[in-house]
Amino acid sequence: MEYAQESLILHRKNKGKIQISNKVPLETMDDLALAYTPGVAEPCLEIVRNPEAVFDLTNRGNTVAVITDGSAVLGLGNIGPEAAIPVMEGKCAIFKRFANIDALPVVLKTNDVEELVRTIYLLSSNYAGINLEDISAPRCFEVEERLRDICSIPVFHDDQHGTAIVAGAALLNALKVVNKKIENIKVVINGAGSAGIAIGKFLLCLGVKHLTLVDRFGIINKGDKNNNSAQEKMAQVTNIDNRVGSLKDALIGSDVFIGVSIGNIVSQEMIRSMNKDAIVFPLANPTPEISREDALKAGAAIVGTGVSNLPNQINNALVFPAIFKGAIDVRAKQITAKMEIAAALALANTVSEKELNALYILPNIFKEGIHQKIAEAVSKAV
Amino acid sequence: MEYAQESLILHRKNKGKIQISNKVPLETMDDLALAYTPGVAEPCLEIVRNPEAVFDLTNRGNTVAVITDGSAVLGLGNIGPEAAIPVMEGKCAIFKRFANIDALPVVLKTNDVEELVRTIYLLSSNYAGINLEDISAPRCFEVEERLRDICSIPVFHDDQHGTAIVAGAALLNALKVVNKKIENIKVVINGAGSAGIAIGKFLLCLGVKHLTLVDRFGIINKGDKNNNSAQEKMAQVTNIDNRVGSLKDALIGSDVFIGVSIGNIVSQEMIRSMNKDAIVFPLANPTPEISREDALKAGAAIVGTGVSNLPNQINNALVFPAIFKGAIDVRAKQITAKMEIAAALALANTVSEKELNALYILPNIFKEGIHQKIAEAVSKAV
Repeated sequence: MEYAQESLILHRKNKGKIQISNKVPLETMDDLALAYTPGVAEPCLEIVRNPEAVFDLTNRGNTVAVITDGSAVLGLGNIGPEAAIPVMEGKCAIFKRFANIDALPVVLKTNDVEELVRTIYLLSSNYAGINLEDISAPRCFEVEERLRDICSIPVFHDDQHGTAIVAGAALLNALKVVNKKIENIKVVINGAGSAGIAIGKFLLCLGVKHLTLVDRFGIINKGDKNNNSAQEKMAQVTNIDNRVGSLKDALIGSDVFIGVSIGNIVSQEMIRSMNKDAIVFPLANPTPEISREDALKAGAAIVGTGVSNLPNQINNALVFPAIFKGAIDVRAKQITAKMEIAAALALANTVSEKELNALYILPNIFKEGIHQKIAEAVSKAV
Repeated sequence: MEYAQESLILHRKNKGKIQISNKVPLETMDDLALAYTPGVAEPCLEIVRNPEAVFDLTNRGNTVAVITDGSAVLGLGNIGPEAAIPVMEGKCAIFKRFANIDALPVVLKTNDVEELVRTIYLLSSNYAGINLEDISAPRCFEVEERLRDICSIPVFHDDQHGTAIVAGAALLNALKVVNKKIENIKVVINGAGSAGIAIGKFLLCLGVKHLTLVDRFGIINKGDKNNNSAQEKMAQVTNIDNRVGSLKDALIGSDVFIGVSIGNIVSQEMIRSMNKDAIVFPLANPTPEISREDALKAGAAIVGTGVSNLPNQINNALVFPAIFKGAIDVRAKQITAKMEIAAALALANTVSEKELNALYILPNIFKEGIHQKIAEAVSKAV
């Protein structure tokens, strides 16, 4: 696997990727008396008098927790809390680098929904926002929903909404390139776990009318006994022609394929069965549903993948630092659909008309100013 | 209150005292591929293969949580989790400054013992050690004991053991100055909450034979209906003459007074009733049980307080960074009495025979090398 050994060396050498550093000097007895006892009593009392002051007098206002139970980590599955820490630290480092947010990993030794909800609630006073991460479906839906009800800070499951926003932005720009209208296209999503369902919901918000979800049992239909509750909800608002069949059947005559499933399950023939100017986003990682090369050979007009060294990387990291930044800067209580749509539009608009083409539908993550622009759009949409 | 307004300004200007910083560069797509996907999968898999590797491949090995429910904060009492954050951040900054440990505040929205134990256990995979802080007695005893049983990392309630170690070290050096033997002295501790009981236990470990605990109901006796379970346990091994009476009665003919109670409750007359060369540590904060000036006037040979701008400050921060450093450096599973005694002896020994005098029984916290010496002694005592 590419990068594997080099990554192991990097992690071992640095003992991880993030650390704590101090924002105030501690070089004299007076410094100690201000930062700690006796001086610290005054900021404590100020927070007792005015609870909101905790966001200004401590680092809470800039702190985001990246919380997982380690049950659905990358393509690795249920590897448990300890083994998930490298991913969470990576995410925290990205929060710092792109949005100057102080994020920290919080891995939990339980997979029980009740315990996850209660534990995260009990911890919520430490944070300005909560990024749920790599919690397996369908538990992730209930955990997020319940936390949103009881926490007074934004709770955002990035595997769902981050993926949805960046895929949505990519689709908006791809449609400009091929000159199709979002209300007319037929979209097929393969994979009906947390990412697939969230992308589906978000595309409906963006104006998609013809959406088909597919999982390993085939096209998702109303009332199918294989549906979990999240899938059944989606079945009510998708597949409006009530088609049955396989992914292959679903793709015939479609305009857009989005894969959040497993590698190598889409053939060139299946891509050829799609409409002209097909948009193909095989996002499975590390091996996409169909290689970029094969998709182009089969006539796809635009291909975007999760792979970092190919054109059109569809990468959550384009969104999650900025959406939290936008939310916590104005102390939003929630991240709403309106804020998510604002983030997708802002991300799409960071690619100028001049720059936009089939090989460049999303900006490079290092492009100056994009995270700030998205954050500002999110703040305004609160 | 001294330092109050200046401290408030410091906290507001810096928005707290600690932040996250990155230990690896994130300036290129390759950097991202090593720190995050796809490279990060390999350190994750290495931890699956070898769970102990989490201490080397992530920042866990250097991370200590400073955990409270905000129920007994400084002299402020039960101010709740949010208002406790400034104190916890101060402690974290001290961890970093004096032992290069990455400590982070974890405040919990519950006072229930069961929930505290379970929540902290569920979080324990994130840390190399757990510093319990400002949890009110007697709950703090049960929370600590139960966590020590179920966690595989050191759990240390600093209000108990940190205070005990530093007071113990101060006493050892004070006894050298007045030339008394620890087995012969009569010690009175006023205050039988977490600090008082822990100091008492620790002094027994150090060799004190004649110990009397006093609380607001007077001298603590076996079988007294006012005793909680921790006090009753102590009653079994203290006050061997079964004396009854008040603090005033207890002090007559004693050699050492240690106060961890409330301000201004010891008179000059009470100090005069003590034996010659009395050692007086009125540690109540911010107002001591008797002022240093009054204690000296009444004939005390050595006075130590919690106040930072007076001689002989008896300050937990002399110990807690180093005791965790010593423990986590060698991945100790617990902090044992043996390690605590090693810490007290090492701290006492950082004051050379030449330096030692009635005005200098403990080193200045900024003295080069003292934290490292204590940490090394703790590591060796594992």
